[in-house]
Amino acid sequence: MSTKIKIINDPVYGFINMPQATNYRIVEHPWFQRLRQIRQLGLAFLVYPGATHTRFQHVLGANHLTNLAINVIRSKGFFINEDEANAVCAAILLHDIGHGPFSHALENVLIENIKHETISEIFIERINKEFDGELSLAIEIFKNQYKKNFLHQLISSQLDMDRLDYLKRDSFFTGVSEGVIGSDRIINMLNVIDDKLVVEEKGIYSIEKFLIARRLMYWQVYLHKTVLAAEQMLIHIIKRAKELINNNYSLQMPPALFNFFKNKYSENDFRNEPEVLKQFAKLDDNDLLSYIKLWADCNDEVLSQLCSRFVNRQLLKIEMQNSKFDENKIEKYLNNASKKLNISKDDAKYFVFTDFATNNAYNATDDHINILFKSGEIKDITDASDMLNLQTLSKNVVKYFFCYPEECRV
Amino acid sequence: MSTKIKIINDPVYGFINMPQATNYRIVEHPWFQRLRQIRQLGLAFLVYPGATHTRFQHVLGANHLTNLAINVIRSKGFFINEDEANAVCAAILLHDIGHGPFSHALENVLIENIKHETISEIFIERINKEFDGELSLAIEIFKNQYKKNFLHQLISSQLDMDRLDYLKRDSFFTGVSEGVIGSDRIINMLNVIDDKLVVEEKGIYSIEKFLIARRLMYWQVYLHKTVLAAEQMLIHIIKRAKELINNNYSLQMPPALFNFFKNKYSENDFRNEPEVLKQFAKLDDNDLLSYIKLWADCNDEVLSQLCSRFVNRQLLKIEMQNSKFDENKIEKYLNNASKKLNISKDDAKYFVFTDFATNNAYNATDDHINILFKSGEIKDITDASDMLNLQTLSKNVVKYFFCYPEECRV
Amino acid sequence: MSTKIKIINDPVYGFINMPQATNYRIVEHPWFQRLRQIRQLGLAFLVYPGATHTRFQHVLGANHLTNLAINVIRSKGFFINEDEANAVCAAILLHDIGHGPFSHALENVLIENIKHETISEIFIERINKEFDGELSLAIEIFKNQYKKNFLHQLISSQLDMDRLDYLKRDSFFTGVSEGVIGSDRIINMLNVIDDKLVVEEKGIYSIEKFLIARRLMYWQVYLHKTVLAAEQMLIHIIKRAKELINNNYSLQMPPALFNFFKNKYSENDFRNEPEVLKQFAKLDDNDLLSYIKLWADCNDEVLSQLCSRFVNRQLLKIEMQNSKFDENKIEKYLNNASKKLNISKDDAKYFVFTDFATNNAYNATDDHINILFKSGEIKDITDASDMLNLQTLSKNVVKYFFCYPEECRV
Amino acid sequence: MSTKIKIINDPVYGFINMPQATNYRIVEHPWFQRLRQIRQLGLAFLVYPGATHTRFQHVLGANHLTNLAINVIRSKGFFINEDEANAVCAAILLHDIGHGPFSHALENVLIENIKHETISEIFIERINKEFDGELSLAIEIFKNQYKKNFLHQLISSQLDMDRLDYLKRDSFFTGVSEGVIGSDRIINMLNVIDDKLVVEEKGIYSIEKFLIARRLMYWQVYLHKTVLAAEQMLIHIIKRAKELINNNYSLQMPPALFNFFKNKYSENDFRNEPEVLKQFAKLDDNDLLSYIKLWADCNDEVLSQLCSRFVNRQLLKIEMQNSKFDENKIEKYLNNASKKLNISKDDAKYFVFTDFATNNAYNATDDHINILFKSGEIKDITDASDMLNLQTLSKNVVKYFFCYPEECRV
Repeated sequence: MSTKIKIINDPVYGFINMPQATNYRIVEHPWFQRLRQIRQLGLAFLVYPGATHTRFQHVLGANHLTNLAINVIRSKGFFINEDEANAVCAAILLHDIGHGPFSHALENVLIENIKHETISEIFIERINKEFDGELSLAIEIFKNQYKKNFLHQLISSQLDMDRLDYLKRDSFFTGVSEGVIGSDRIINMLNVIDDKLVVEEKGIYSIEKFLIARRLMYWQVYLHKTVLAAEQMLIHIIKRAKELINNNYSLQMPPALFNFFKNKYSENDFRNEPEVLKQFAKLDDNDLLSYIKLWADCNDEVLSQLCSRFVNRQLLKIEMQNSKFDENKIEKYLNNASKKLNISKDDAKYFVFTDFATNNAYNATDDHINILFKSGEIKDITDASDMLNLQTLSKNVVKYFFCYPEECRV
Repeated sequence: MSTKIKIINDPVYGFINMPQATNYRIVEHPWFQRLRQIRQLGLAFLVYPGATHTRFQHVLGANHLTNLAINVIRSKGFFINEDEANAVCAAILLHDIGHGPFSHALENVLIENIKHETISEIFIERINKEFDGELSLAIEIFKNQYKKNFLHQLISSQLDMDRLDYLKRDSFFTGVSEGVIGSDRIINMLNVIDDKLVVEEKGIYSIEKFLIARRLMYWQVYLHKTVLAAEQMLIHIIKRAKELINNNYSLQMPPALFNFFKNKYSENDFRNEPEVLKQFAKLDDNDLLSYIKLWADCNDEVLSQLCSRFVNRQLLKIEMQNSKFDENKIEKYLNNASKKLNISKDDAKYFVFTDFATNNAYNATDDHINILFKSGEIKDITDASDMLNLQTLSKNVVKYFFCYPEECRV
Repeated sequence: MSTKIKIINDPVYGFINMPQATNYRIVEHPWFQRLRQIRQLGLAFLVYPGATHTRFQHVLGANHLTNLAINVIRSKGFFINEDEANAVCAAILLHDIGHGPFSHALENVLIENIKHETISEIFIERINKEFDGELSLAIEIFKNQYKKNFLHQLISSQLDMDRLDYLKRDSFFTGVSEGVIGSDRIINMLNVIDDKLVVEEKGIYSIEKFLIARRLMYWQVYLHKTVLAAEQMLIHIIKRAKELINNNYSLQMPPALFNFFKNKYSENDFRNEPEVLKQFAKLDDNDLLSYIKLWADCNDEVLSQLCSRFVNRQLLKIEMQNSKFDENKIEKYLNNASKKLNISKDDAKYFVFTDFATNNAYNATDDHINILFKSGEIKDITDASDMLNLQTLSKNVVKYFFCYPEECRV
Repeated sequence: MSTKIKIINDPVYGFINMPQATNYRIVEHPWFQRLRQIRQLGLAFLVYPGATHTRFQHVLGANHLTNLAINVIRSKGFFINEDEANAVCAAILLHDIGHGPFSHALENVLIENIKHETISEIFIERINKEFDGELSLAIEIFKNQYKKNFLHQLISSQLDMDRLDYLKRDSFFTGVSEGVIGSDRIINMLNVIDDKLVVEEKGIYSIEKFLIARRLMYWQVYLHKTVLAAEQMLIHIIKRAKELINNNYSLQMPPALFNFFKNKYSENDFRNEPEVLKQFAKLDDNDLLSYIKLWADCNDEVLSQLCSRFVNRQLLKIEMQNSKFDENKIEKYLNNASKKLNISKDDAKYFVFTDFATNNAYNATDDHINILFKSGEIKDITDASDMLNLQTLSKNVVKYFFCYPEECRV
């Protein structure tokens, strides 16, 4: 008698409805379920204990916002048919399916030279085959090949539903209340002009706030120095483990992981060899967290040390500054680490290293956040706002960091 | 057996404790109870229906934050004795007691040329007499005459507990979530250097966010154009009523209001004639809202029209722009209004008028928000932050507005 | 190009949309705007300072929930056409329009023997005339004369949108978090069987929680002893003022109030004499709060004392118990009050009095909350729940109270 | 210059301070850090995606509430010295340290016949040695051997800080808002009489609400049928894996897990052989989640099937009822499963099985929640409350469940 509506309890938005049949099949797919095991914020939970939320929650939330946005846009007189609505929702549900263990933290480390967006795309195409082409329109929109450009913008642009959800969700779970954004308000101010998403004039302050919040979340959470130190340790653990494997050192690990350590798969391999994607789909956060505990007991001094510090949260010290670190300082620390840890200077580079992190909260060259004035005029937010700093926001900020074991400080 | 602790339920912070005996006597004082009848945000409830919160709630909230701040500062090694703690709390509780009906909206209108801070001070001194000098230290702190300057800063500075509470509370009750600030975080980052409040380096982003939120609340709430239009109508109602009273027109009103309409009391009158303050203490929002309904039925066409539009929320139209409005345009509207409303052109000025509103979220010339770096260095937030716009923030923004009855548009 | 959607910021639910044209006209009506000046919880703000929210906010919130419920019911396969949807929403918007100053506190006191529901109905019929019959369907639903009975249940039943909103809203503004209910969840579990609202089996715990929360809010807020004491004082103020007026004592008050003090209007008068309703529409909380300050200075000792205690929140003491208070005790207190306050014993009854308050959170004789089991079976919640206490809940609880001035305690 | 205070961002309470030095050392201990990898609610995240919060967060939260409670009790005139305060806080921080992977779900399955409380105690004693006896007082309190009994009640009783935190936290992360409790209010109502915690009369409704909320969380979350089905699958996976290991079947797993599968350690082994505890401390949720993916590819049909269904969230169907399931029905399902899955009937018992779950929200025989009346009288909450159902609450509710693969339904 009553149609089944799938309802999900979400701590951020309350109840979430997922009415479309196709989309529910997506959620049930094992590859999608895997996202339950991939934390949204990698290792941020080591600083913000609440931040154990997953990609699974995030894409459901982004799907919810997309539904809201579709309703708003329809209410302003734009026709979006049911197939299009389902397809955008499918696309947003699947946009992160290509993430590997610890999301961004290990991007380009576990699998080199292939971005998660590319892997997402390959996953979607594979599922589309299983679904007999039901996702073809979603793929067109995902790749921005569909005529209605603004539908793509909903899933990928400066103001997409992805960002609206993750800022709100990450603020919520980290407890960093300053990151809270008015996603409701922004969505209600959306409109479409010349096939582009625009924000109505009344939403200017909300957009300013959104950009500032994003910047704040970058420095306070995403690039928090302790989080960075932990991620760098994880990266160096993976690098060392790979090196050992490729030197035929025996290290307990799941076959799928061994596979990716041993072989450098290209994008083409991912596209053309179904087994590669299948293996990739077997990996999640749990594997690394579980095996790193084992590796802490291995014979390789470097890997064992790195892993045992990581497991016990005895993280490397990290310094951050706006300019490069002095070569002499690094040299001195390396020498000291080699001596103190009783390892070669080359091996010491797993403990003493420098690199940089960057963010730009608004990228004006990329695409634009357009403000629609009552007069009909459209301006980029950096022109529309009388806060000059938005131009500052659009500049890359680069921060250099330098890591070392506390006891090796010189 | 158990000591009485006064607990108050606050929707914003949950439970609030008020442990100090003196302060509880303050809260019970009739002059303090009057603050229950003065809305924090004047007429903003006409746009944000939830914004019916009062000065009473605000000062209790600010008192709560002050208690938190005292604990934080003490925990960082600064001695604040019980008398000082009580005195700061008393001062923050009483800092707004001089507000009249509709707070800022009618400041300088009902009582001309006397700021609410001055009236607060006079109230406090009067209560101090009743309390046999118990508030003398609070008064010293309030007037910034006490040796520990940072105590005064807690109740009045760029980063005082007043602002922290009102931004948070006003966001909460208006439902404008973008205004939410991390008061907890800011308070935890407070420290004292050379007798001045400073914010530790880690709090920079929170301060940036606080300043941006303040700016946003200004334009989205405090100076929202519809709120402005309503306030301007209220101001013109008071002006007209005063004019009528001073021309011996008979208008029903409470004696206290009549008193202030008829007499121009000076600051000295407030200080020296107890009856003046007592009369002032009899006025609150309810009087104006009640009598304006009566005045809507009076014989004076101007007052009756203004009041009836106000009561029925048929507000004047308002236009806002960055430059002054064209004299010719104003002239045309005035003439049209005079004709359409069948009143003299002088009377039309009650319906057609221009003025300006201003805000500056951060006033660098006034006092400073100082950031304490780990190195020990102290910088003003505008230097410490790499967001140039803070300098923009510290510039006055002036917006001109122009009001008129919709039917008189030319 | 874009249709106008009316969006309102609500602290409880975030954004609220009001899409229907008729309903927006209702909101703009002066009689509806009056609800901005009537507090939802009468004098509860004297105990819970945040509880200054108004009937205006409540009916907008209830309207929002009704919209949600309509969507849920439609999604379960029940047809509700646009006219019906608009009409239910109009009915819920208008269901409280008959409330006078301080809502329930003065019901049957200011206007005797007419319930606010009746006055609401008369208001709606009057507005329907103005709107040329646009509200006729809303009236049918309001009076439960429309064929689809469940539409009436949405606006008036054990589980109507009125209760869902007020419990949630009152919890929110008082800060009594225990009253929070899962309105989202309950609404999502709604279904219709045989033209009656039912709740699907999965919602049993939410309903239990809702009933418990309601009971808790009764005793913790609605019938809080201090709130009760304040309301009783207000009631006695009105009674005394009426008595004085009817004895031709001169007392400053607005003509509308004088009118209702002087005349006992019947339901028929309200129905047939437009002027009566119009006068009623001129009254709101502000009038009483404003004039009571004046009456505190009047010559009548009883009224003056009552008003001055009320204004300064020097409330009568109140005792509560499960049985009637002893006649002898009352007698003693009356005699003492007469002596202490230097008034006649008859007048002392304005200060020393007893009465009772009652609540039943669930009224099984009235209508039912029906639970729909997967098997198709339907049971009353008191049978469906294995918590016997729901039967307890449905019993009337009566609490007797006794008020007196503290200094007259014997 | 400024003392270091450890501040943690908690999504539930905002900022949490952890001032005591000893306690910070506890948090840094690797055994404590392990709690970051043990979900608070086991597999509930399969139904409530947000419920990925960990034991780590919970004990920090419980520690925070304990600090609040200590302040409240002190403010009511009871002396608690700094050592005692530190010790209670240490005890609450450590009370859950004995939990193994998936907390309650695998209790008595992974390690048979030893409760997590016992393992906690052994952990604490071991850490106490490392800390040179710093935790001796904490241990006395933990074991209820310290003279001030109410300190033990704060960490273990019907109304301990453990329950106050987990109810609030679990509600928060599942998004089941009906479970929200007023922990603030309850804590503020705490008092001590005759060395026992009591709740002041005004807190009765909050306690009723707390007990109801607990019951609701049991049935809606902790014993949610789908969660139960998932947990039962996990239990059967472990059982099968153990069986295989003990039959010398080779199965990839970490040495620590192998150890516990192969050996049945007694409480004495845990107490006396340091290596046993150390091995136990190496296990967390990640291991099971990681290896179950591998086992899905093993040769044992039963284990492989169970694991693969579990990983892909193709859970067993579950039926629940108040009475035992019919033997004949079970027999039929077993036979059918044996045929359909092509396994022996004995093996079919891994897929088709029945058992029961139980809860009692209030255990009157255990210890009591005592209400302190103003008269000085003390009553058990079941007597103090006029809601008979509290007596119902204290009865055990037993629900029988029956699991089977959907395709084996007869």
